[in-house]
Amino acid sequence: MLPSGTFVLGGAASGKSAWAESFCESSDLTLNYLATGQARDAEMDQRIKIHKDRRNDRWQTIEAPFDLAPALAALDGDSIVLIDCATMWLSNHMLAETDLAAAQDDLLLALQSCAAKWVMVSNEVGHGVVPDNALARQFRDAQGRLNIALAAHADLAVLVTAGLPLTLKGTLP
Amino acid sequence: MLPSGTFVLGGAASGKSAWAESFCESSDLTLNYLATGQARDAEMDQRIKIHKDRRNDRWQTIEAPFDLAPALAALDGDSIVLIDCATMWLSNHMLAETDLAAAQDDLLLALQSCAAKWVMVSNEVGHGVVPDNALARQFRDAQGRLNIALAAHADLAVLVTAGLPLTLKGTLP
Amino acid sequence: MLPSGTFVLGGAASGKSAWAESFCESSDLTLNYLATGQARDAEMDQRIKIHKDRRNDRWQTIEAPFDLAPALAALDGDSIVLIDCATMWLSNHMLAETDLAAAQDDLLLALQSCAAKWVMVSNEVGHGVVPDNALARQFRDAQGRLNIALAAHADLAVLVTAGLPLTLKGTLP
Repeated sequence: MLPSGTFVLGGAASGKSAWAESFCESSDLTLNYLATGQARDAEMDQRIKIHKDRRNDRWQTIEAPFDLAPALAALDGDSIVLIDCATMWLSNHMLAETDLAAAQDDLLLALQSCAAKWVMVSNEVGHGVVPDNALARQFRDAQGRLNIALAAHADLAVLVTAGLPLTLKGTLP
Repeated sequence: MLPSGTFVLGGAASGKSAWAESFCESSDLTLNYLATGQARDAEMDQRIKIHKDRRNDRWQTIEAPFDLAPALAALDGDSIVLIDCATMWLSNHMLAETDLAAAQDDLLLALQSCAAKWVMVSNEVGHGVVPDNALARQFRDAQGRLNIALAAHADLAVLVTAGLPLTLKGTLP
Repeated sequence: MLPSGTFVLGGAASGKSAWAESFCESSDLTLNYLATGQARDAEMDQRIKIHKDRRNDRWQTIEAPFDLAPALAALDGDSIVLIDCATMWLSNHMLAETDLAAAQDDLLLALQSCAAKWVMVSNEVGHGVVPDNALARQFRDAQGRLNIALAAHADLAVLVTAGLPLTLKGTLP
């Protein structure tokens, strides 16, 4: 039995998405993949393709770079949705100069009222030296606040390192 | 019963200070906040203000950007002191071109002889790619050495990620 | 009784090498240190010297910046080999523009067929903000993939933070 909400945090290329996919696939639920990434350049395009090729036929892909609420509200209780990832979602909003606090509140509300189980993937970005430019520092702080809020709303929170999970909150099923 | 010395490590915007504050507030001890930060610009000023506004009336604030020994020696056994943080302290000393090894020895001695319980907050800064400039690499290495020494002197050491603690040493009370 | 293969991940200046050395020294096995670093400048030279001075007489040092297979094949079952580290090895190969996937396959095969126990040290580099330059992003991703593969091939995997180990896989002896 999977928890209602799961938060999967990890570094870049840490295996966090692959771990989250296996976690969802271990259930008999309908699998939904909510992609927040936007292919802005060839490098990003390639990253999205690698993720797409790895997922099998059981997965349905929904694209939602900004407002996740309609997509989450459309899912029923026999579904699980993997949202990949909070970092791309935040990056989209920062580039669009959205009110981040309001967008974060809307996101948390949409997760809380979602009938399906949800698994949110996100990046840990705060363990390097202080970035030189102010925008990178703002992003790092906004990502930190978002991760704290997502972990607080989840029943299970894991940190994936080198493909392996450390449990931060709750118990692995 | 809180341990004599606690080391709280975390990334930027990881919730480490808030966690450390709650940890101290769970006791009946007199609460002391030893601030090592210096408001050098508007951004830093804003960060200090946010931390200050969050703390309630039980807290007494002491400012000590360089030498913590006199402030720590003035505290009695019915007190707990939250030192926030080792990273700002190290940064102050690096900018002042102090002998870091000597300053670290003095700090560790002051903690060992402190009658009050102490909680030291610090940053993990070594999990990014190698920084371009030599000063950032020196800082990263000095911070690493300081974190190892502080963890070795603490009875309890935790890593706070997304607001949640992982125990590195000892047992959470 | 030490495991056949151990993976020791950590940040810069996290105490991961010192931890790995103590781990090996706790056994009665013949101690081999396989150094992958190349002293390209004074800073690197200094880092190598610090590591060398710390190791006692029980250690035999082998230098192998590129192909580890011959060195690993020469060891017998009464030996343990500390490979320090996967990050330098990867860096050497990236600078030489080797086929990384093939080099990684060769490395994993050499570890699997090694009669001696092995301990591989590596860096976590993916927990900072996205690096500005494309080469740093490529390195970060290649390091992430390598860490996942090494952890998958190890019986024991630990993350060293502030000198203290968190177990990611297996059980500490």
